[in-house]
Formats: sequence, structure tokens, C-alpha cells
Amino acid sequence: MTDRRPSGQQKRVNRITRKVGLDAGALIHVGLLQEHNVRVTVFDYDGTHCDQWQPQDLEEIVPLKDSPTVSWINVDGIHDVQIVERIGQLFGIHPLIQEDIVHAGQRPKMEDMSDHIYIVLKMLEGQDSEREVDWEQLSMIIGPNFLITFQEREGDIFDPVRQRITEDKGKIRKVGADYLAYALLDLVVDHYFVVLERLGDKIEVLEEEIIGQSGPEVLNKINHLKRATLTMRRSVWPLREVISNMQRLESDLIKETTKPYLKDVYDHTIQIVDTVETFRDMLSGMVEIYMSNLSNRMNEVMKVLTMIATIFIPLTFIVGVYGMNFQYMPELHWRYGYAAVWIVMLIIAYGMVSYFRKRKWF
Amino acid sequence: MTDRRPSGQQKRVNRITRKVGLDAGALIHVGLLQEHNVRVTVFDYDGTHCDQWQPQDLEEIVPLKDSPTVSWINVDGIHDVQIVERIGQLFGIHPLIQEDIVHAGQRPKMEDMSDHIYIVLKMLEGQDSEREVDWEQLSMIIGPNFLITFQEREGDIFDPVRQRITEDKGKIRKVGADYLAYALLDLVVDHYFVVLERLGDKIEVLEEEIIGQSGPEVLNKINHLKRATLTMRRSVWPLREVISNMQRLESDLIKETTKPYLKDVYDHTIQIVDTVETFRDMLSGMVEIYMSNLSNRMNEVMKVLTMIATIFIPLTFIVGVYGMNFQYMPELHWRYGYAAVWIVMLIIAYGMVSYFRKRKWF
Amino acid sequence: MTDRRPSGQQKRVNRITRKVGLDAGALIHVGLLQEHNVRVTVFDYDGTHCDQWQPQDLEEIVPLKDSPTVSWINVDGIHDVQIVERIGQLFGIHPLIQEDIVHAGQRPKMEDMSDHIYIVLKMLEGQDSEREVDWEQLSMIIGPNFLITFQEREGDIFDPVRQRITEDKGKIRKVGADYLAYALLDLVVDHYFVVLERLGDKIEVLEEEIIGQSGPEVLNKINHLKRATLTMRRSVWPLREVISNMQRLESDLIKETTKPYLKDVYDHTIQIVDTVETFRDMLSGMVEIYMSNLSNRMNEVMKVLTMIATIFIPLTFIVGVYGMNFQYMPELHWRYGYAAVWIVMLIIAYGMVSYFRKRKWF
Amino acid sequence: MTDRRPSGQQKRVNRITRKVGLDAGALIHVGLLQEHNVRVTVFDYDGTHCDQWQPQDLEEIVPLKDSPTVSWINVDGIHDVQIVERIGQLFGIHPLIQEDIVHAGQRPKMEDMSDHIYIVLKMLEGQDSEREVDWEQLSMIIGPNFLITFQEREGDIFDPVRQRITEDKGKIRKVGADYLAYALLDLVVDHYFVVLERLGDKIEVLEEEIIGQSGPEVLNKINHLKRATLTMRRSVWPLREVISNMQRLESDLIKETTKPYLKDVYDHTIQIVDTVETFRDMLSGMVEIYMSNLSNRMNEVMKVLTMIATIFIPLTFIVGVYGMNFQYMPELHWRYGYAAVWIVMLIIAYGMVSYFRKRKWF
Amino acid sequence: MTDRRPSGQQKRVNRITRKVGLDAGALIHVGLLQEHNVRVTVFDYDGTHCDQWQPQDLEEIVPLKDSPTVSWINVDGIHDVQIVERIGQLFGIHPLIQEDIVHAGQRPKMEDMSDHIYIVLKMLEGQDSEREVDWEQLSMIIGPNFLITFQEREGDIFDPVRQRITEDKGKIRKVGADYLAYALLDLVVDHYFVVLERLGDKIEVLEEEIIGQSGPEVLNKINHLKRATLTMRRSVWPLREVISNMQRLESDLIKETTKPYLKDVYDHTIQIVDTVETFRDMLSGMVEIYMSNLSNRMNEVMKVLTMIATIFIPLTFIVGVYGMNFQYMPELHWRYGYAAVWIVMLIIAYGMVSYFRKRKWF
Repeated sequence: MTDRRPSGQQKRVNRITRKVGLDAGALIHVGLLQEHNVRVTVFDYDGTHCDQWQPQDLEEIVPLKDSPTVSWINVDGIHDVQIVERIGQLFGIHPLIQEDIVHAGQRPKMEDMSDHIYIVLKMLEGQDSEREVDWEQLSMIIGPNFLITFQEREGDIFDPVRQRITEDKGKIRKVGADYLAYALLDLVVDHYFVVLERLGDKIEVLEEEIIGQSGPEVLNKINHLKRATLTMRRSVWPLREVISNMQRLESDLIKETTKPYLKDVYDHTIQIVDTVETFRDMLSGMVEIYMSNLSNRMNEVMKVLTMIATIFIPLTFIVGVYGMNFQYMPELHWRYGYAAVWIVMLIIAYGMVSYFRKRKWF
Repeated sequence: MTDRRPSGQQKRVNRITRKVGLDAGALIHVGLLQEHNVRVTVFDYDGTHCDQWQPQDLEEIVPLKDSPTVSWINVDGIHDVQIVERIGQLFGIHPLIQEDIVHAGQRPKMEDMSDHIYIVLKMLEGQDSEREVDWEQLSMIIGPNFLITFQEREGDIFDPVRQRITEDKGKIRKVGADYLAYALLDLVVDHYFVVLERLGDKIEVLEEEIIGQSGPEVLNKINHLKRATLTMRRSVWPLREVISNMQRLESDLIKETTKPYLKDVYDHTIQIVDTVETFRDMLSGMVEIYMSNLSNRMNEVMKVLTMIATIFIPLTFIVGVYGMNFQYMPELHWRYGYAAVWIVMLIIAYGMVSYFRKRKWF
Repeated sequence: MTDRRPSGQQKRVNRITRKVGLDAGALIHVGLLQEHNVRVTVFDYDGTHCDQWQPQDLEEIVPLKDSPTVSWINVDGIHDVQIVERIGQLFGIHPLIQEDIVHAGQRPKMEDMSDHIYIVLKMLEGQDSEREVDWEQLSMIIGPNFLITFQEREGDIFDPVRQRITEDKGKIRKVGADYLAYALLDLVVDHYFVVLERLGDKIEVLEEEIIGQSGPEVLNKINHLKRATLTMRRSVWPLREVISNMQRLESDLIKETTKPYLKDVYDHTIQIVDTVETFRDMLSGMVEIYMSNLSNRMNEVMKVLTMIATIFIPLTFIVGVYGMNFQYMPELHWRYGYAAVWIVMLIIAYGMVSYFRKRKWF
Repeated sequence: MTDRRPSGQQKRVNRITRKVGLDAGALIHVGLLQEHNVRVTVFDYDGTHCDQWQPQDLEEIVPLKDSPTVSWINVDGIHDVQIVERIGQLFGIHPLIQEDIVHAGQRPKMEDMSDHIYIVLKMLEGQDSEREVDWEQLSMIIGPNFLITFQEREGDIFDPVRQRITEDKGKIRKVGADYLAYALLDLVVDHYFVVLERLGDKIEVLEEEIIGQSGPEVLNKINHLKRATLTMRRSVWPLREVISNMQRLESDLIKETTKPYLKDVYDHTIQIVDTVETFRDMLSGMVEIYMSNLSNRMNEVMKVLTMIATIFIPLTFIVGVYGMNFQYMPELHWRYGYAAVWIVMLIIAYGMVSYFRKRKWF
Repeated sequence: MTDRRPSGQQKRVNRITRKVGLDAGALIHVGLLQEHNVRVTVFDYDGTHCDQWQPQDLEEIVPLKDSPTVSWINVDGIHDVQIVERIGQLFGIHPLIQEDIVHAGQRPKMEDMSDHIYIVLKMLEGQDSEREVDWEQLSMIIGPNFLITFQEREGDIFDPVRQRITEDKGKIRKVGADYLAYALLDLVVDHYFVVLERLGDKIEVLEEEIIGQSGPEVLNKINHLKRATLTMRRSVWPLREVISNMQRLESDLIKETTKPYLKDVYDHTIQIVDTVETFRDMLSGMVEIYMSNLSNRMNEVMKVLTMIATIFIPLTFIVGVYGMNFQYMPELHWRYGYAAVWIVMLIIAYGMVSYFRKRKWF
């Protein structure tokens, strides 16, 4: 299952205008334009067995709703709203939540619908060249013994969890759907760190660039990074709240034994927020350095100009004086007039240079 | 029902001075100057029928107050305070609320008057050329089975809801006045997104303009957009609170089944707030780029001046020297004096150019 | 009762130093220096009658304390501390409150003294030329059926209320002292709007000035306006809290029927706060524009200098070359040497101009 | 008791390093280096008598602990930790509090130790030339009928209270130790106002300086004042909290009748906070003006240079042309060539001047 | 036990990437790369005895868990995850906490695990040349009568506590593991002050540097110090919260008698926060001064250039005029033409200088 997201080329339908005036619950896809078929994959496991298949017909997944085994139904693609609607009907998902699932760009949030929990969040998946931080919407429906996930694209970051399930590593096979949801959340948050580290690397590179001779494109880069941190902050702040709410939720769907793990993820989100704030501070400091570099360079240029001009302008005046054509200019006829002028000019030049030295302009 | 608002030309009476010292509850119109007659339109519907008419006499609407069908009384124009006062008397609206209805520019708020709820908010309706964001005050009185809306202008954004009522689309005909109020609120909030998108487009255009050679008018544009985001923020922050209060209201007027829909609108307002904040950050970043562009261009200009001056000023001094008219200037009589001077000058020029190269001024 | 405040000339004793080390409750006047006699005016009314007189002796007002009619005792001038002290004794006002009454510059606050309520606030009364916003302290003692107000100056903004009382307009004669207090508060807050509008006008004028050729005095004006908004904010923020506290007060002195009116005033104060914040944002934006205008103008000046210098400095060098007096300068003797030099110079000038055109410096 | 603090010369031991690793409760003096002997003075009074003496032996003060009269034990100097320790043992003060008493630089705080209350705060005592705001730590132990105060230096600001006690002015002799504590707090806060007024005066002077020709030292002064406001804010914010906590304290040590007085002091601290914030805003505005003045002056300088250069550089080129020595230069032999050149040059100069006029550079 | 940390050279494994996708509770070391063996040291003491040894086998420490004496098990090095895991098993530490222990870079936090408390924080240990503030993670497990500490490096700041234990100074031997934990926390916080003082010294040095002729490296230094304060703030803010939570903890593990000591440490953290904020303000003010210094120096340079150019450019023009070779130039033949030109030029020069004097450019 390779990651084949050519994210730089993909387009988003993010015009909300398409939706204005529709009835609540009307399913309209807003998000990445996709052409592939929607793929549904199912993992069904308990401590002793683990099945994995791609259902041909959505009816196949109905029994999973009430089976005692844990079922993970993953849907790659939300552009085919009929599939979302069908699953919604089969699993009794509220129409407003169906609407949120197909409408990418939701603010991360959690809704407790008593017989299932809805979580929507932004999954960061690397950085494309233009937007630095690229995201995709992930929706989760946590039921008593099933978990349904909706992603926008094929290919994802969940392979490590799939591997842990199939190879029965750790405790994942022994516990319920809430732990599976936690495991996926943990991966999502870990990928935030990955993106953060890349941002950190870029900031470090920029810090060195900025000391050298840097043109206006550096400021552009700083602003791109600033915007990337902004995007991250806007993704992670509400996510932090989501996880905090899950922890405090009074619901059978989240078991008490899972909550310490959620606390762990929560601590990670706080660390991300901290780092993002630090990055923002660093970037602001870099703008200051950049601006003062501009002024410094201007100062340098001006000093060179001033030194040259201040030394030569008086000298040019002097030689101009003796270029005048007056009939009666006694100096012109002196024997050592020419030499005297040179000496005077050297003294003036020396005086100027000394003045600049004293002022520490060299 | 076309939208014929020549908003750019319309004037507002927004001088509160007219009101100073009047008794509380005295109705004075403050808002858009209008000349058309106030038009009242009525929708009266339930699951089985739907009537729509324009009453000739306000007495016609009295029976709607207690009829079991849902009635939507829409008033286009608040400049005729007598009509507002008459409706207020007929439906038992508190004088202070009547005062707020005719006084455009209210901060969005909700008042629970136990037998009806008063909501006032700002409706954004597009952007006129001068103020970027143009608004109009919308007041709603939510009763047990009626909804009264007061707008400032003819023509509005509610046609999609009217259509859903007349064509019996969705669940709107099956539910009460609170759902109708929600449907209108939803439309208002959707139009905030529309305005946001236009702002976003303008910001994108500006971002490209700012990189090129941009004059002071760009900063002006940025400031206009900043002010537009400010207006939006000031409209949407209290609106967010209004909807949050409606959700938490302990009142029979808002049914429990409607509250999930209000939650949905609430989420939208938070998204708007988020986007507005992002826009503000982006615009601040653009001011920084603009300012540094100014400095950069100044630097460029100064470098050109300095290079030209620094190369030619010493040379001009040299040629000045040999323009002097001293009687005894041995160099003037040398066979290759002239050529020698040229060579010296070329060396100096070359040295200067190398110096600038080394400093990376090219 | 005309408004004869030559506020620009009046001086304040605002040196707290005079008070240091005194016993609590020692009455020391701090505030506007006044020379007129303190004037006490009394309104005594109920639904059927209305008396108005100026008592010669303060003993005259004693019976008002327990009479069932509503009495409004207005004191113009707090510089005569003995009058304040006498009234304080007659009406049982706590010494610390007496101290606050004569000490102008109090932060707006409300104190519930169980048998009366003390409110102190800042009354804005127009703008004098120096400080933009001019204020005067207003103290109110709300008793069960009396209201005592203390102002610093003669002449005030309360004439509309006096008129409503004498002419029996609205409900003011039918209700108690708390409604009278509300009516005065409402007027005070309305005058905040008046001052805000004037500030708004000045900001609009400044906005146009700033686009043209503006000198450093524009920044001074912006700073004056900024300080005015600061003064307003500092007056209105605590006032907002005062009114909010009055609304929530569990006291017989504020009747339940008066509270909706207080809510109305409260909404106004929030609107003022909003507008003040907007003004501050606008003024900050204007500082930015002003600063960038400075840079722009500098850029313009530099470009002119650079163009002139860059075109003529090389040419001046060339003519200098042929002004040299070398014996052997073949060009000087060519037939078309002079013409050739002109052609070379024109080519150089044209090249320079083209270069500047390409760089869009024109 | 004159105030003999040569504060500018005094040194502080403010290196916490001396304390690292010591056991909690180990008394180490951190604060002003003092050489005088610690002086203990005692006031012992009730409604009928008032004694004042300096005990030779600390055992003398033991009976004061349980006597029904009010006793104020004032200790000038905390550098002799043994005296503090001895008093601590005699009056049962917790070792951690003893540690705080001798360790100047505590953040203002209140500790309720059930049988006594500990208050520590910063006393501002004027402004020395270097730090603008000079402070000294004041510790108070409020017991049932005694008050112990610890100051760092001899000489203080409490003489007005001493006078009120000895001369039996006001109610101070009739009430308890908590009122005495209030009276001292009130004086401390009044002195904050005194310092504020001096800061205000300096700011006013600076405001005028800044408009004239001001060098970099003005910015230095602004920064000193900024730091002074910072110091004040850091002293007064926690002090505000201390007094607020005292007011809400459920303890027999603070009587209900004293609480209105504490409320009064509390209001003063809020006013101080307000004023400090205003000062900070004013100082920030002044930095802006200063910066723009710099730019303005640069603009002026550049305009002068540009005007001179732009007028004379082309003229110098023209005279250079006719200084060339070509054999065939027809103009040189024209009868009115010289006059014609002058006319051309005057036209050019006039053109330039007109251009600058049009651009409003004069 | 000398402090041998060559921190400047040590590398950190701070790539979270290594951890992505692992099962919760999988122990992966993230932190300082270390090569030394992990050293475990044990202190076991009560009021009467004190043993200290380095166990060869971890089984040796098992009896300490339930012995009535206080045991302090200190682990130097977290890179050997097996040792941490073994101790974790022996003392029943939750796998998620084991994970946090070996994963340096945790945000300071406290976890109450009912039979033990987990605290993790950042220990500041001086300043290396590159990062100004250098930290190391300290984890504490507080049990009923044992304390386990995990550090990243050999050598630490705890020797004063070790000494107090072995020499039975103060009350440390008489009290429990919670007091020991407090004593260590107190030392950690005291070292924050030490680092703060060093930062303060550097800021003072910078303040003097900045007034003189300072290049761009000063801004760099300011930014380094800013980042250091940022690091401190990010360490101390959550630490403050940790200690506040410990104080309020309802647990037998923290005795009531220890809580006043925690309050004391808490006050220290608030003071640190205060000082850090002051430092940030001071550094911001210094950036302002630096920037204005740049402008000032530019102004100086420009004035020198302008004065020289403005004086000599007109004079050079004049001498150019009389360098022209027109046949008919009457002035050239005047007897005192040359002298007259000199006089004219001196007058012009004098006029210029007077003009600059008037403008206060000297």
C-alpha cells in the first residue's frame, strides 16, 4: 500500500458557495477532486483471529455492526456521497454528521451521539512545495465494537497499525474499538511531529540564509513558514480540545483503560502547540533580523558613497579652481604651484580619511 | 424577487445624536435611508398546505399569532416606524425591543422574553466598492408558531428557503417556527462564507500584486481588507455567542430536535472566526512584505547611485587635475601623458567594479 | 440652563500628593478648580405633581429623605466639601463614599451600601481642543425614593430629563428613583456616542489628510486621537461593569421593572467598547500608512536624485576628459571630434533613460 | 525622623546564588547592604494611652504579644538575621516566613497562618537617578493585637501614621491592629501615586522634548520610563491581589469594619494599574513619534541634497562642455555664446525649481 | 562528584520520527546521546542511620520498596532503556510513564498514579555557548517511602541535598520521601535563578554594547537571549502548574506538613516567570534602540554627505563657468575677476554653513 498522493497537483472544491441554501443534511461533496473509485477495506479481528477484505457490496458489512469482534471499516474517498450515505443509513449516523463527513475542511471536533462518537480532524501528510503543510480530512465513527474511518485520498499513514493488527503485536488485538481509534489518533499526532520537524529543519536553513546576503525571497519564505505554523496551530488547537473532551467523556464507548492513552496523546498535542508557538516566535525574530539587515546594508552602501563623495568633491573643486581661465591668476605662474596644489589636496584627503576613521566608518 | 440593492449609493442615518435624551422606547429610525414603501409578506404553512400573500391591512395577520400553522411574517423596511410599532402591539413585543428593531447597527444579541425570543444580527450581502463588506440589520421574533423578520431593504437572500417551503423540500414544512429561524440563520451564516471567499480571492490577488512593483495604493487595499475582516469579526463574534445561547436556552420555543442544527450553525461560525483570524494574519504578513519591499527598492536605487558616483567621481577628479592651467605641469608635455591617464583611469574603474562585485552589489 | 463650560481653561487639582497620610474619610477636594458657589437644585415629583426649587438651607432637604415622592437633589460643584459633608450626614452616607465624591478621578464603580447605592462614573461632555475628550465626575446616591447627584461643574447634559419630568413625558413621573437614575445613566452613555461620533469624524478627516502630503503633525493628531480612545475605553470599560452589576444586584433599590432598561444601557456600553476598539485598529492602520508614506516619499526623492546624478555624472566625466590640457590629445584636433563627443554623450544618456524605464522608475 | 536614604549609592545583595542548596528556613539576608544597627521601635496604645520606646532587649516586647493594647513593633533593617529570628521565635512565626522577611525581592503576597497574617510588599520611596523607581521590601505580621513591620532601611514614609497615633487623630487609637495595618498599606499605596505623578511629569516633559530636535538619548529616556512603569506594574499587580485576598479573608484577624477601608485601598490599586497602563500606551506612542521623526528628518536632509544636486549637476555638465579644448567648437566663437549659455542654464535652473515647487518639496 | 558535562559537544536524538507507529508503551530512548554506563546510586536513611551504595544488581533495591526507611534511588542515564524498564517492573510503574521517562523533551507535568506520583521537568544546568540555556530531563517517582529520580547525564546539581542527608543537617533526615522530593525541586528551581542571573548579566552587558557603535551581531545576541528566555518560560510555566497541582493534591503521598514548602517553591516559580517577562520586555526595548541607532547613524552619514555636497557642488559649478573657453567672456579679463570669484564662493560657502547651523545639523 504505497503512498501515491500527487498532492501538489490535486485540486480542492472548497467553494462553500455550492452549498448555500440547501437543506440541512443534503450531502454535497466539498474537498479534494478525486477520480479513483472509492475503496472500502474491512479489518475484523479479536484476540484469536483477524480477517481483512474489500467488500463488493456494502451489505456485507452490516453484520459487523453487532458482531462481538472489533471491525475497522476504512473508506478511501468521500467524493462518492452515495457510499457515505449508504454506510450512514446502515450504521444509523445522523444526517448532519454525514454532511460533515463529505464536507472536507471541518474544524476538528467531537460529537457524542450516545450510540456512537463522531470525530473529525485534519491529518497532515507532508509538505507540498506550495503550501508547506498539506492536509486531508479524517472522520471517525467510534461504535461499541466497530470503527469507521473516512479519508479523502487513497494511501494513508495507518500501515503501522494495520501491521500491528495482522501481526498481533502489542495489545491492540486484545482490546476494543476505542483503543483502535486511539492508535490511529496517536499516529496522526505523531505525523504532526514529523511535519513539525521538517518545518524546524527549514527554519534552521533559513536562519543561516538570513545572515548572508539575502534578497526579498527570504522574507517570502519566512511568510510561507509562518502560514504553515498557522495552519498547524489551527489544526492542533481544536484537536487538543477534541482529545481532552474524549478523555472526560462519560460514555461506555471510551473505556476507562483507554483514557490514560488518550492522556498521552493529549500531552503530545500540548507539546505540538508549544513547539508551534516557539516556531512563530523564532520566525518573528527572523523578520526583525531581516529588516535590520536591510537597514545595515543600506548603511554600508551609504557610507561608501559618502566617503568617496566627501573625499573627492572638495578636491574636484580645487582642481576646478585652477582650471579657470582668468587672465590674472598669480598661482598659475608660480614655480611650484602645481606641486603645492597636490600637497594641499593630499592633506585634505588625509584629513577626511582620519575623520572617517575616528567615526569608525571603516 | 431579484436583488436590486444599489448599496453603494444608499445612505445611512447612523447619527445617534438624533436620539439623545429621548424617553426609552421612543421609536426613532436609525439606518439605511429608504424611499420604497414597507412591504409585508406572509407565509403560512403546515405539512399539508402553504399560503403566501401580502396583507393590505396589518389586522389580517392577527389570527396568525394563535393559529396552529407556522407563520412567517417578513417586513422589508424598518424606516416606517409605525408599522413596526403596530406589529409590536399586535404581537406583544416589548417597547425596548421595538426600539432595537428600528435602530440598525445593534450588536448581535438574543433576548429571551419568555413568550418570544428576539434575535438581532448583521446580514452580510456582498461587497460594495467602498466598504468591502456591506451589511443590513436582520431582526427575528421567534414565537411559539410564528416568526417575524425585519429587514432594512427590499430583496434578500432568503429565496432558497422560500422555495423549500413552497416546494415542500426537506423537512421544513413538517417542523416548527424554530426550524424556520434556524434555516434563515443558516443562510445568513452561509452568506458570511460567500463574503469570506470573495475576501480570500482579493487577498490572493493582492499577494501577487505585492511581489511586483507596487505603489502606496497596495497598502491602501490591504487596509481596506483589514477593515473588512474587522467588520466581519465584529459581526460574527457576537453572532457565535447568540447561537450558542440559543442552543443552551431552556425554553419551549426552541425544540430539542432543532438544537443539533443550531450546533451545526455554531460550528460554522467558529470556522468563520478562524478564517477571519487567518486572513488578518495574512494581511499583517503582507504589510511586512510591502514595507520590506519599499526598503529593498530603496536599497536598489541607492546601489545604482553609489556605483555610478563611486566610479566616476574619482575619474572626474583626475581629468580635472589635467584641466588645470598651471604653467609648470610636466605631465602635460609628456608624449604618452594622455594615454597614461586613460590607463590609470581604467585601472581605477576596474578596481571599483571588482570591489562592488566582491560585495555582491551586482 | 446653558452650557457655559470654558473647559479648555479650567485647571484640575489632580495632585494626589495633597492627600498623602491623611486619615481615611478626611474630605479633600481633588478635581476641577471652581470659583462659583455650589448650587443645589431639587426636583420633587410623583405622578400628580412636580416641584422644583433651590434650597437656601440644606435643612430644607431633610424631609425629602423619607417622603413617598421621588426627590432628585442635584449638586453642581464638589469643591465646597462642607456641603458634601453636610448632605452626607443628613442622608447617612459612609465617610469613605463622601471622600470619593469630592475626589474626582475615581474609577467608575458601584457600591451597595444596603440602604443606598453609590455610583461614580465619568461624564464626557464634548471635546476641548487640547485633550480631545473632556470629562467630569458624576456621583449618584440612589436611595429608596431619592437620588442625589454630584457634578463638578455648573451646566450639564441632563436638561432632556428635566424636561421629561416637568412636562410629564413618558413614564418617568410614574416610576421611582431607580428609573430616574437609569434615565441619567442613559443620557451619559448617549453622550459617549456623541463624543464617539465626533472622534469618528476626525478620524475620517485624518484618513484623507494622510493620503496627501502630510507632515509630522498628522502623526501627532493620530496620537491625540489614540489617547482620546484610550480615555474613552478607560471610562467605559468599568462603566460597563457598573451597569452589569446594577442589573444583577439583589436589592430593593433597583426594581425588577427597571432592569430591562439597564440591560439596554448595558448593550449600549458594549457597542461603545466595540466602536472604540475599531477606532483603535483604524488609527493603528493609519500609523502604518503614514510610516509607509514617509518611506515612499523618500523613495521618490532618492529616485529623482539618482536619475539626475546617474545621467550627468558620466557625461561630466567625458567633458572633463576633453577639458584636459595635454599637448598630445589627437581627438581634440579631429574635424568632427566635438560632434562625436555629443553623439557619444547622447547615446549614454539614452541608454541610462532606457535603463530607468525598464526598471519602471518613471 | 528624617529620610536619609542615599539610595543611589546603596548596593543590593540580590544574588540568589548565595542561597542555592541551603535547607528551607535557613535565614540568609538578601537585599540592601546596610551598615547601621537594626533599630526596633515600639508603639503601644489604646483609646486612652500611647507609649513609644526603643527596647534595649528583645525580651521587653514579649508581653506585648498578649496584652490587650495594640502594639506596633517596627524593625528598621533586615540585614541582622538574628534579630528577625529572635522576634520570629518570640511571636511564633513560621521559619519559611522568617526566610521571606530577610530575603528582599519577594513578590507581594499574603499568607494566612491562622494565628497571624503575613503580608510582604514593595514600598516605593521616590526615584533615584538611575532606576527611576526605587523600592524597599516591607513585611507585616498582623496578629490579634499586634503588628510587626520589617523594613530594609532607616527612615520611612510612616510618620503621618505615627503622628495620628500620638496626637490621637481620627479613629486610629480606637481600633485594632488590622486598622493600623490598613493605615500603613494606604500610605504605601498613596506613595505609589506620588511616584506615578513624578513619572507623569517626566513623560510630559519628554513629550515636548520629542517634538523638537531630539537625539538618541530621548529614546533612552523613554526606555527608562518604560522600565519604571514595568517595575510599578510588577509591584502593584500582586499587591492588588494581596489586598483583594485580605478583603475576602475569613479570619478574626481582619475585622468586618476594616474591610470597607481595604476595599478603598483596593480601588486605589486598580486606579494605579490603569494609570500605569495608560503610561505604557503613551510611551509606546512616543516611540512611534520618535521613529517617524527620525524618518522625517532624513527626508528633509535628502530633499536638500537632492535639490542642490539636481539643480547644479546638469549645469556643471554644461559648463564642462564649453571647457573642452576641441579645435572646432563653433559655439565658442559666437559673439553671444557666453550669454546664451547663461540663459540656457537659468532656464534649466528655473525648470528644476518649478518642478520641486510642484512636488511641494519647499 | 564533579560536574563533567561537555554539553556543547553532546548530541541529542530528538527526532520523534524514530517512534512513529510504535505501540504505546514501547520504550525508545530519545534524548542526549550518551556512552557511559548507566549508574544507579542509592541513599537509604531515617532519623538514625544513613546508607549509601551503588547496587550491582537491580534486585538489591527491591526490599527498599516496602522498608520503612526513606530510600532515594538515583539513575544517571536514560539511554539504557532496559534498566528503566526493569525498575519500572520492580516498582510497578505504568508503561506509558516508563515511555515518558526515556523520552527526553517531555513538557513538565505531574501524574497521580494513586500509589505513586510521577513528575517530569526540565533541569537547567548552565549555559552552553550556543543555546544559552541547556537543559536535561529529570523524572521523579514519589512513592510512600521511596523516591526514584532519572537524569540524562552523570553529574548533577543535587550534591547539597546529599550533603544535608549524610551530615544530617536540617530536618531532611526526620521527614519522608515527599520532603526529599521537595528539596530536589527547590534545588532545581534555585538553579533556574542562577541561569536567570547569568542571563541578566548578559543583558546588562548588551545594554552597554548597544549604545556604542554596534553591528548586526548585537541583534543576533539579543535574539539568542530572547530565545533563551523563551526556553525558560516554556520550562517554568508548566513547572509552576506542576507544583501548584502537587500542593492541591489529595493524596497521602504528599503530607500536609510538606505543602507549605511546596508553596514556597511555587512562589519562586512565579518570581521566575515575572523576571523572565521583564527580560523579554527589556530585550524588546533593546531591539527598538538598536533599530533607532541604525536610523540615527544613517542620518549622521547622510548629513555629512549632504553638507559636503551642498557646499561644494555650487562652487564647482562656478569654477566650471570660468573654465569655459568662450572667446568673449568679459569677466576673464577683469583685473580682479579671480579675487571676485573667490569672494563670491566664500559668501556662498558661508551662507550654506549658516543654513546648516540654523537647522542644527552640526
